Amino acid sequence: MNPEQQMEQRGRSQWSITVFEEEYFQGKSCQFTMECQNILDRDFRKIRSIKVENGPWVGYEYPEFQGQQFVLEKGDYPCYHAWSGNSSYRTEHLLSFRPIQCAKHSDSKVSLYECEDFQGRKFELCDDYPSLQAMGWCSKEVPSIKVNSGAWVAYQYPGYRGYQYILERDRREGEFRNYNEFGTQAHTNQIQSIRRIQH
Amino acid sequence: MNPEQQMEQRGRSQWSITVFEEEYFQGKSCQFTMECQNILDRDFRKIRSIKVENGPWVGYEYPEFQGQQFVLEKGDYPCYHAWSGNSSYRTEHLLSFRPIQCAKHSDSKVSLYECEDFQGRKFELCDDYPSLQAMGWCSKEVPSIKVNSGAWVAYQYPGYRGYQYILERDRREGEFRNYNEFGTQAHTNQIQSIRRIQH
Repeated sequence: MNPEQQMEQRGRSQWSITVFEEEYFQGKSCQFTMECQNILDRDFRKIRSIKVENGPWVGYEYPEFQGQQFVLEKGDYPCYHAWSGNSSYRTEHLLSFRPIQCAKHSDSKVSLYECEDFQGRKFELCDDYPSLQAMGWCSKEVPSIKVNSGAWVAYQYPGYRGYQYILERDRREGEFRNYNEFGTQAHTNQIQSIRRIQH
Repeated sequence: MNPEQQMEQRGRSQWSITVFEEEYFQGKSCQFTMECQNILDRDFRKIRSIKVENGPWVGYEYPEFQGQQFVLEKGDYPCYHAWSGNSSYRTEHLLSFRPIQCAKHSDSKVSLYECEDFQGRKFELCDDYPSLQAMGWCSKEVPSIKVNSGAWVAYQYPGYRGYQYILERDRREGEFRNYNEFGTQAHTNQIQSIRRIQH
């Protein structure tokens, strides 16, 4: 498929996600093309598997987009472990989700800052970095982040593992002044890898 | 840091990894600059945390580079969950490891094939893909893979999650004819994301 065909396909496609009450796409299911604030309101007890027909989406541990965050790109997620990537804090909940509107591969820029409130030295990135330390960032922590364009996902550990923080230009005007603003579950500013979220 | 400085830094650096018997870099430790076939031979009972001073490395579940594979890029891994990314099959072992020699960001190419033994339609990649399906690959499986240059890591699930398969030009001449050749722990050809491994 050439880039033009891909663009055409993207133009046609809407966001679409199907959630299932049981693992491996079994049991009760429901397809969504827009955000869901609380899956419990749809008489689901739990989400145990997911098919993303068109993404990207972000899933949240709790209703109303609270708690742990999980980036959900197109593909099959047959069980909780497929989207969590963080097993030390096993909640196994995913109760709300929404499309990521501003994901746009061709134009993504983010600035990392050495201190909170965008103070200290600044590092500008336009690419994916599985190891910020290999790239020259001297710490395992990132105190504040400004998203200039696009949508990004930052991770606690190298190689895109551990807690995920979805950072979008369209939310908070792209400004994340300290780790409390990364997400409601964040209790450290430890970030060791970061990548763009693509359509 | 500009690209020249980065290159210079890379030129100076050797592979280096420090393993610890306890979580959070506690207890007995040992630094390596070359491969380790079996950490038990060094009177370690287990590896519970890792600092990669210079990478990339690949860790294995069992001695002599057998079992589950874990890509280890520069950074801190305070516990098992930091490198596993796959919690459904909890082994918590990492008993051997080696440097990835052919990781080279500027020149990485891989071909995915629709069927085993490099048959069927071919897809050539030079970039990272968090979702192969979003890129146009119609299946959640990749039956065979040829690495033309560099080193890659393929993952079971989208977004770089689940089982990891390290695929290098320098091993098997880059030829992986079926899922048995992806790794000793592979029992399916399910691959939904792939990325380059960088220095």
